Amino acid sequence: MSSPAADPRDPAAAVPPPELLAQRFRHVRARSARLAAPLSPEDAMVQSMDDASPAKWHLAHTTWFFERFVLAADPGYPPLHPDWDYLFNSYYQSIGPMHARPRRGLLSRPGLAQVRDYRTEIDARIDRRLAGGGLGREALQRLELGLQHEQQHQELLLTDIKHGLWCNPLRPAYRDDLPERRGGADTPLRWIAAGERIAAIGAPAWPDAGGFAFDNESPRHRVLVPAHALASRPVSNAEYRGFVEDGGYREVGLWLSDGWTRAQAEGWQRPLYWHDDLRHAFTLGGVRELDPHAPVCHLSYYEADAYARWAGARLPTEAEWELATAARPVAGHFADDDGLEPQAPCVDAAAAMDDGFAQLYGDVWEWTASAYSAYPGFRALPGSLGEYNGKFMCGQWVLRGGSCATPRDHMRASYRNFFPPQARWQFAGLRLARDA
Amino acid sequence: MSSPAADPRDPAAAVPPPELLAQRFRHVRARSARLAAPLSPEDAMVQSMDDASPAKWHLAHTTWFFERFVLAADPGYPPLHPDWDYLFNSYYQSIGPMHARPRRGLLSRPGLAQVRDYRTEIDARIDRRLAGGGLGREALQRLELGLQHEQQHQELLLTDIKHGLWCNPLRPAYRDDLPERRGGADTPLRWIAAGERIAAIGAPAWPDAGGFAFDNESPRHRVLVPAHALASRPVSNAEYRGFVEDGGYREVGLWLSDGWTRAQAEGWQRPLYWHDDLRHAFTLGGVRELDPHAPVCHLSYYEADAYARWAGARLPTEAEWELATAARPVAGHFADDDGLEPQAPCVDAAAAMDDGFAQLYGDVWEWTASAYSAYPGFRALPGSLGEYNGKFMCGQWVLRGGSCATPRDHMRASYRNFFPPQARWQFAGLRLARDA
Amino acid sequence: MSSPAADPRDPAAAVPPPELLAQRFRHVRARSARLAAPLSPEDAMVQSMDDASPAKWHLAHTTWFFERFVLAADPGYPPLHPDWDYLFNSYYQSIGPMHARPRRGLLSRPGLAQVRDYRTEIDARIDRRLAGGGLGREALQRLELGLQHEQQHQELLLTDIKHGLWCNPLRPAYRDDLPERRGGADTPLRWIAAGERIAAIGAPAWPDAGGFAFDNESPRHRVLVPAHALASRPVSNAEYRGFVEDGGYREVGLWLSDGWTRAQAEGWQRPLYWHDDLRHAFTLGGVRELDPHAPVCHLSYYEADAYARWAGARLPTEAEWELATAARPVAGHFADDDGLEPQAPCVDAAAAMDDGFAQLYGDVWEWTASAYSAYPGFRALPGSLGEYNGKFMCGQWVLRGGSCATPRDHMRASYRNFFPPQARWQFAGLRLARDA
Amino acid sequence: MSSPAADPRDPAAAVPPPELLAQRFRHVRARSARLAAPLSPEDAMVQSMDDASPAKWHLAHTTWFFERFVLAADPGYPPLHPDWDYLFNSYYQSIGPMHARPRRGLLSRPGLAQVRDYRTEIDARIDRRLAGGGLGREALQRLELGLQHEQQHQELLLTDIKHGLWCNPLRPAYRDDLPERRGGADTPLRWIAAGERIAAIGAPAWPDAGGFAFDNESPRHRVLVPAHALASRPVSNAEYRGFVEDGGYREVGLWLSDGWTRAQAEGWQRPLYWHDDLRHAFTLGGVRELDPHAPVCHLSYYEADAYARWAGARLPTEAEWELATAARPVAGHFADDDGLEPQAPCVDAAAAMDDGFAQLYGDVWEWTASAYSAYPGFRALPGSLGEYNGKFMCGQWVLRGGSCATPRDHMRASYRNFFPPQARWQFAGLRLARDA
Repeated sequence: MSSPAADPRDPAAAVPPPELLAQRFRHVRARSARLAAPLSPEDAMVQSMDDASPAKWHLAHTTWFFERFVLAADPGYPPLHPDWDYLFNSYYQSIGPMHARPRRGLLSRPGLAQVRDYRTEIDARIDRRLAGGGLGREALQRLELGLQHEQQHQELLLTDIKHGLWCNPLRPAYRDDLPERRGGADTPLRWIAAGERIAAIGAPAWPDAGGFAFDNESPRHRVLVPAHALASRPVSNAEYRGFVEDGGYREVGLWLSDGWTRAQAEGWQRPLYWHDDLRHAFTLGGVRELDPHAPVCHLSYYEADAYARWAGARLPTEAEWELATAARPVAGHFADDDGLEPQAPCVDAAAAMDDGFAQLYGDVWEWTASAYSAYPGFRALPGSLGEYNGKFMCGQWVLRGGSCATPRDHMRASYRNFFPPQARWQFAGLRLARDA
Repeated sequence: MSSPAADPRDPAAAVPPPELLAQRFRHVRARSARLAAPLSPEDAMVQSMDDASPAKWHLAHTTWFFERFVLAADPGYPPLHPDWDYLFNSYYQSIGPMHARPRRGLLSRPGLAQVRDYRTEIDARIDRRLAGGGLGREALQRLELGLQHEQQHQELLLTDIKHGLWCNPLRPAYRDDLPERRGGADTPLRWIAAGERIAAIGAPAWPDAGGFAFDNESPRHRVLVPAHALASRPVSNAEYRGFVEDGGYREVGLWLSDGWTRAQAEGWQRPLYWHDDLRHAFTLGGVRELDPHAPVCHLSYYEADAYARWAGARLPTEAEWELATAARPVAGHFADDDGLEPQAPCVDAAAAMDDGFAQLYGDVWEWTASAYSAYPGFRALPGSLGEYNGKFMCGQWVLRGGSCATPRDHMRASYRNFFPPQARWQFAGLRLARDA
Repeated sequence: MSSPAADPRDPAAAVPPPELLAQRFRHVRARSARLAAPLSPEDAMVQSMDDASPAKWHLAHTTWFFERFVLAADPGYPPLHPDWDYLFNSYYQSIGPMHARPRRGLLSRPGLAQVRDYRTEIDARIDRRLAGGGLGREALQRLELGLQHEQQHQELLLTDIKHGLWCNPLRPAYRDDLPERRGGADTPLRWIAAGERIAAIGAPAWPDAGGFAFDNESPRHRVLVPAHALASRPVSNAEYRGFVEDGGYREVGLWLSDGWTRAQAEGWQRPLYWHDDLRHAFTLGGVRELDPHAPVCHLSYYEADAYARWAGARLPTEAEWELATAARPVAGHFADDDGLEPQAPCVDAAAAMDDGFAQLYGDVWEWTASAYSAYPGFRALPGSLGEYNGKFMCGQWVLRGGSCATPRDHMRASYRNFFPPQARWQFAGLRLARDA
Repeated sequence: MSSPAADPRDPAAAVPPPELLAQRFRHVRARSARLAAPLSPEDAMVQSMDDASPAKWHLAHTTWFFERFVLAADPGYPPLHPDWDYLFNSYYQSIGPMHARPRRGLLSRPGLAQVRDYRTEIDARIDRRLAGGGLGREALQRLELGLQHEQQHQELLLTDIKHGLWCNPLRPAYRDDLPERRGGADTPLRWIAAGERIAAIGAPAWPDAGGFAFDNESPRHRVLVPAHALASRPVSNAEYRGFVEDGGYREVGLWLSDGWTRAQAEGWQRPLYWHDDLRHAFTLGGVRELDPHAPVCHLSYYEADAYARWAGARLPTEAEWELATAARPVAGHFADDDGLEPQAPCVDAAAAMDDGFAQLYGDVWEWTASAYSAYPGFRALPGSLGEYNGKFMCGQWVLRGGSCATPRDHMRASYRNFFPPQARWQFAGLRLARDA
């Protein structure tokens, strides 16, 4: 089979060859299993808030996604567990009604073992279909989408279980074998200026053209980016501690109105997971000392925005951020590095960069000043999969760059993550920007 | 060792001999383990509403009760898991702060296996103390209280897991081996009259006198019971179905004001667990056909009261109920019979009774017209254990007689169960009464 | 004018002669107008919480009651404003749907002037019917009920406007001309004992027998009242201050479980309307110095109960209270005295009593230990008026004796007021009791 | 009278001469009084939801704004009612604490008459200061800001009282003399295309340059507007009725996720104020027949967005909208026309336009696809007035063009109104757009 055509208009371009896809399928699926391995059946059932899901649910839902959108595209396909459609459909209203999200944690059945069996069986069916050439181009595209989807849930599995374990007064660790990386040097923050320009951002609309991208990243389009400057690296724990100690959480003038209301109602005094000594925090490895030079994380948009205002700066727009990544390779501290906590920048690496930017990718998602909305010319995927992204374009903000919990090969310059402004349980921090 | 003194004023009366207590301790503790045996670790973690607790929590809390109130009464006692105090204290504010009740279902750790180990270890310690004679009279009394307490939680474990499994759209059974008992005959309801009289109800205050009774059952005291009549048996499923079919849930005039508001807000149309065909219901054995002659259950006070009004009757007071039990032995369908669902009355048995009453004990708790409050002369137990019952004497109603989920030897004529009027997940039904 | 028949079985007994009724009608109706006179149109529209109603609504609803239940009993009667039925029906579900209670404060129309016109016109119609002999016995009974009903709303008008004005940060007075009565002497609290006895409490069922009583006061029936002692007078401001200063609001062991939860959630630290200096309080005359010897008021049941526990006592049952009133005349500080704030007991008066009780009537409603429920043999009034009292017999507590905001001729020994345990805006205090 | 300096860098440019300002002050202030004239004291107190304010509060708050920001800028200024600061501060946290917004409707005092007196007195003080030349440039600028502020509240007064009166089951009219304008012709909707271009939008930052603009309209800046087409006129009632009749409110696929949730929770089936016959609606003149050709209004963003999706189109961005206005004069149906309800387009007027656009200004605010956020280079006003706009830049959407309730001289091409997506009580409709 020939390699993907170079012509971006060739729809085949959007589908890797089946052998590669099969390999990638096994790789991604195995990683989910690995992520869940440290969890007891009880751990895998915890749902600590409406926005989070149990690990078991993540394992089942991602599998259901392949069964429903790849295997069941064949009209004669008999579902393995017809009544699981209701349980593991997340939000595809056009497919049918679904179990209420806040009640996912009540599903003791199917048990974790049964869900693992379900994964094994669906994996085998997909494998057979892949091996037998039984999947047409559209099914292969959905398989690719399913893998990207599963990678998103891999990150959510980590952020959700982190929150779930933190809610337990015993503060148990997800894993006891996570390395404690400290000792990063203090890297001075520099400002990197860019003049006004017209730039193209976003990705060509997959699968009609180009490599994989979610529909919300498309089309690639021209924007006018005004003159501005970006910080060379994200805000660090030490810097953020300065904000806290300066009374940032008590100074109403620094906050968005909704942010202040929320912070008062929920008693925010520091980032989620920080102890009140401002020196320790809960991590997936248990309570650890904070590395002052690592990027601050577990901030809401409101906190990131208030910090920026305190610092006399602002958050970058997503266009400014995307411009900064230019043709830069996707490098940084990702989930693949198995640290699962943001790290201080690698000094040498940053210095070696032509432009001086550090940590654009990995470590922490960077809140941007861009509300999550449609790019000009946006078209949702057809059918039920069109519910994937477009219907959430209201009331959320874009984050860029991936985190220490994101798989590296899931990331790209045009990637748009989005969360509501009060969300704190993601690995989200910030990079400062300012007008030129 | 001599048997308990006959003189009710002898404080020793309230404590059985240690050998008997040890035997009973092992028996009660083993039953809890047996009740939890059909549950997976996931099942044991389900908390489907604020009022319910996970089975695992019941197992741990009842154990903690023995550790805290029996073993730790010895000031030198080192707790097995000091940080579990916070997790498994239910509502003893005088002991210290506690984990929020609605968040018990988030505690994946300690796992079910660890909780079982905890039970084993505390059992061993109690056994050793009992065998070694190391428990004084007060500790032995607390041990007795702890056993009564555990029996209460045994019933709650069943009602809570029933609700939890019902919340799962798969409607899984707690046990697949529960017998399906049907075919009871239609027993005509008769009215049994009683003239005005002064009666003594309640129990002598334990442990100062008499056998075990909770503090809220005491003191034994005189009341004037007016002339009245009680129904010979509880209201049956068939009778209650008549109420539903007659539009009972749509007729505002039958309902207490708060009950109507609640019924509308929650969309009540039939008893909890009934299907809309009014012929099937969810049970601990899965979905089953309703036995028309079995007592209706899973009613709130509001529904019981509305039914009585529809039937031109009223609920009995607790004094009327207690009077009816007279010197009758505690007999009926209890948890010991392993049916775990109310059954039709045994015709012969009822007929054989002198007074014609059937099912006063067992099958279903009977809502009474008595608000749960203090008997004249009520004195709560001293210390933290005084929080056991007295502080709930507001906004709840008394239920009498025990249910198919109650251990038989936990029941007695003076027993006062209490729940708020909206509670539906207990095995609660009703018996009619009317003024003479 | 002949007096009512002496034979209590004569139904005519329950209806005063029309001339007397007409006089009383004018008197009661005029008093409502007088109570509303100090209010601006804006004041009369304030609804400060769901449980309270605007003064304008009280004025209209009481009038609607006469129109609907007296005038419109004549099937040919044309309602004055047919669409006001929806607005001014309070809770008579059997009459039809009604405006939502929490939204009464939104009704700017009809305006206060229109409501006054409505009163004038309905008064005239009633007068004409009374003068013309056009009202039959049942209508006359409903007229009597309507007057009792209006007197209840007269008290509510005062308690509601007090709360409404207190919610205004300017703390404006309802009236500037209220006398400031202080200087009462410290009357020592004595205990007055009563042995066990069988007593008759309640009232014969009106209108079939006897003078007016609400259905919930009937039937008169026998109860066994155990030996007990009652305090000679209500708890005073000074005594209650002692409770506050002793940390009563911080000591969980003194509180009912629901009460503690409520107190924490709402930040209770002292009686409603007290300043934090514990020396001043908001009154209908504005902020005033507290009279240490006057009865404490604006307590919830929870606070009254906690105080009693702190004092080593309990609340009296309603039977104990009613027994204490014996054949005592209804005397005390009532609304007729135009103080509208509880006063210190009149020393001489109390001393002059044979039995030593002071302030059983008037000043403050006394919370009792009796949950509000049906007397044995209770029968609600027939028809829609049956919704008046019976449907609220759940979750509330009985208060006895009337207050400084109650009209004197509205009170009687058998009168049962009832409020939920969290209610604080009524003139409610407590008298201590204890077991003998 | 000399005209403002032509040089936009001259700070004086931003301040009209005092005589003009005085005249304008009287004019604007008198209009508020006129708007409130039809309201009774009761009407002026209605607050029907948290987001709305009583008319009386609008009258007082706008006056307080002048007193606080203009008069009290003089440090020796004695406030007229020092304790009103707390009542009538809206959301200026840096000035001090304030009365809770949802409780503004409880303020019966000060009464409407007192508030009118307050207006009179402050007007006189301002007049005196203006006449005496006692206001410096900054004070004059704040006066100008205060007038713009009052004009905003004039529109809110109308939308709030409309909602308040609609909440009354009697559905009373605000004014009985409003003309019923119907009979507009059906104007076909045309698409007007625009190629990609770089355009300048926004306004120079007042008061440093140019005429008045709120801080959120600045700076004027360049944006790249992609090729697109805009509808020639807003969506009409008849067109929107087609959406309703086609099941638009039942088709989940048309809705944003949050919008669907909200619509279900609140039972939306048609625009706010429409009757279920889809032919009548509540207006400020009472219930009226809908003009099918008039722009639909009282839509939430969610409804506007769903309609656009149903129509195969989208909402315009604010840049697209602003570009369409080009140098067009601010003409249309405004509050000055005293219709207070959107009207059908004037056919001739639209035809006469070069570009064919109708009703860009007036009639209905047009929801845009632009989330409300900061323009590049945005700087909030200094001091407390910086809280005016910037702190709300989260979770809201921009609306453009003004409505039938907006004063004409308050509108300009760069004006950015903003509301949360669920807001329905503003005169908000939509114009369709599509990608080229």
